[in-house]
Amino acid sequence: MVVTHTHHIQTSGQGDVRDVTKFVSDDLSRSALTAGIATVLVIGSTAGMTTIEFEPGAVSDLGALFERLAPRHAEYRHHLRWGDDNGSSHVRAALVGPSITLPFVDRALCLGTWQQIVLLEFDTQARRRELVVQIVGE
Amino acid sequence: MVVTHTHHIQTSGQGDVRDVTKFVSDDLSRSALTAGIATVLVIGSTAGMTTIEFEPGAVSDLGALFERLAPRHAEYRHHLRWGDDNGSSHVRAALVGPSITLPFVDRALCLGTWQQIVLLEFDTQARRRELVVQIVGE
Amino acid sequence: MVVTHTHHIQTSGQGDVRDVTKFVSDDLSRSALTAGIATVLVIGSTAGMTTIEFEPGAVSDLGALFERLAPRHAEYRHHLRWGDDNGSSHVRAALVGPSITLPFVDRALCLGTWQQIVLLEFDTQARRRELVVQIVGE
Repeated sequence: MVVTHTHHIQTSGQGDVRDVTKFVSDDLSRSALTAGIATVLVIGSTAGMTTIEFEPGAVSDLGALFERLAPRHAEYRHHLRWGDDNGSSHVRAALVGPSITLPFVDRALCLGTWQQIVLLEFDTQARRRELVVQIVGE
Repeated sequence: MVVTHTHHIQTSGQGDVRDVTKFVSDDLSRSALTAGIATVLVIGSTAGMTTIEFEPGAVSDLGALFERLAPRHAEYRHHLRWGDDNGSSHVRAALVGPSITLPFVDRALCLGTWQQIVLLEFDTQARRRELVVQIVGE
Repeated sequence: MVVTHTHHIQTSGQGDVRDVTKFVSDDLSRSALTAGIATVLVIGSTAGMTTIEFEPGAVSDLGALFERLAPRHAEYRHHLRWGDDNGSSHVRAALVGPSITLPFVDRALCLGTWQQIVLLEFDTQARRRELVVQIVGE
């Protein structure tokens, strides 16, 4: 059985990290499924999905890591094409990936106590993001 | 229900990035499934899967990022073992991961307009890659 | 159909990389399923899952990459919050992700000959890890 839910999330631009765990666990609760997997996807090529301990320190450390890996104000060939300023967003997003897949058992997501599902906004502008939660199970 | 498709793709070696979106969407169209998830895997430990806006600028920026993270001509202990020169390929591939899982709804992949599924060739030699598209749904 | 298996793995702390392929292939063999996908998740926000050629050189190279990306002894805001010393663990884990999803066909995992599923321990202390193998298929 497959159950689909869609959520919209307004972000404030690069560095915004949103805890979306409750969306996914609520979607699970509303479904009749007891075991399976949930794939959580953010649509678009300038955002990513992962898990982290969602506290301001770790979130800030992750932002600092991405700024070292792909600085926002460096030169990107992507900028030459469209006049955009979000080359850093594209490469960060490609590195992380747009989706995450997590098991659930006895109607509960398999996650640690200090582990949340997060949407990573990499774009340089505020964006209205569409999150697809696809639950496959029995 | 599960539907499996396999594709072979000849790459030109490190830095080659191939848009494989059409393989996956065609596989979906040929199946009788309307909703579920598609897992796309490249077999082997020197390639990866992600999504990106598939235009030459962003693709080049991503290659430059990987060259900064794990330079091709640095020293790798993997080289000592086999006399290989693809240590950079192995660590880049492990960082990105060999598969990506995407939802589909109403027979269509959930992807942004400017978002393509890409195979990242990291190996230092041209390779004939095997791509497995596993569709699970109803 | 969904089949769940759980495994416990004692790690020795940051840099420990464990080949868990046999857990997953044994779980597959014990199931009645012939085709589908297996999602392998490590619970917690300081470990990750990927694939690599599991030989000491490549494993060491991957550890060196993570040490360059997020040095263990750098300053992290996460340390200020809890008095922890594992800020490097959290950002490395968020970068790699806690799960991997692989197809299986004819009861066999789709993996290369020189490609293993590995648990990456990033935490600065030894940990007893819980691995969830969720098999979805027919």
